[in-house]
Amino acid sequence: MSWLDAVRWNADGLVAAVAQDAATGRVLTLAWMNREALQRTADTREAHYWSRSRRALWRKGEQSGHVQRVQDIRLDCDRDAILLLVEQVGGIACHTGHERCFFQRLENGAWHDVEPVLKDPKAIYGDG
Amino acid sequence: MSWLDAVRWNADGLVAAVAQDAATGRVLTLAWMNREALQRTADTREAHYWSRSRRALWRKGEQSGHVQRVQDIRLDCDRDAILLLVEQVGGIACHTGHERCFFQRLENGAWHDVEPVLKDPKAIYGDG
Repeated sequence: MSWLDAVRWNADGLVAAVAQDAATGRVLTLAWMNREALQRTADTREAHYWSRSRRALWRKGEQSGHVQRVQDIRLDCDRDAILLLVEQVGGIACHTGHERCFFQRLENGAWHDVEPVLKDPKAIYGDG
Repeated sequence: MSWLDAVRWNADGLVAAVAQDAATGRVLTLAWMNREALQRTADTREAHYWSRSRRALWRKGEQSGHVQRVQDIRLDCDRDAILLLVEQVGGIACHTGHERCFFQRLENGAWHDVEPVLKDPKAIYGDG
């Protein structure tokens, strides 16, 4: 049996994947993988995901250069979640230009942006 | 609009929630919340989840005593994932008796348990 068969893929053939910065310990992203994304992540040691909105395989950083170099791949107890320890190239994991996606904090009954934009997304991805 | 309405609940009314140990930075668990679980988490500052297998609201640690005291609640950029920073009471987050759920590492094409069981689950939950 392949190690990929041990994963409990959901009804859409996906598994949730958390990426954590190996140097800082900060939780960067939560994205989704299909079987091919996880296979490629293991083979290339660069994070690949499945974009549910674009319905396409996606190498993290393929446009921005903000690749996630994978140091460790973990599976959870019930085999339906992945944890990656990564080196976040460029120090920016989020398409908004924040270091990471979890920049909104619940305070006094509302979500507040509490982390800075490190780089304008237009400078990351271009204007068009 | 309630802060709960800002969350992009999936077709089942759920959102993925990662819990990270605030002291050690270790990623402990990935579980699911419905609206009521997130509301109660915010109100009580103890993590509540929705058990998909039992189809029931669940206060983390209600049986084991291994409560997650919540210090920070974050939402990600596309509003469909939650990150909790928690104090993990008892130092055990996983029902297997491991510190955390992500104890299996991919090595040489197979998953290996690479973290110890800290406490026998029978001692946590009882024999029956």
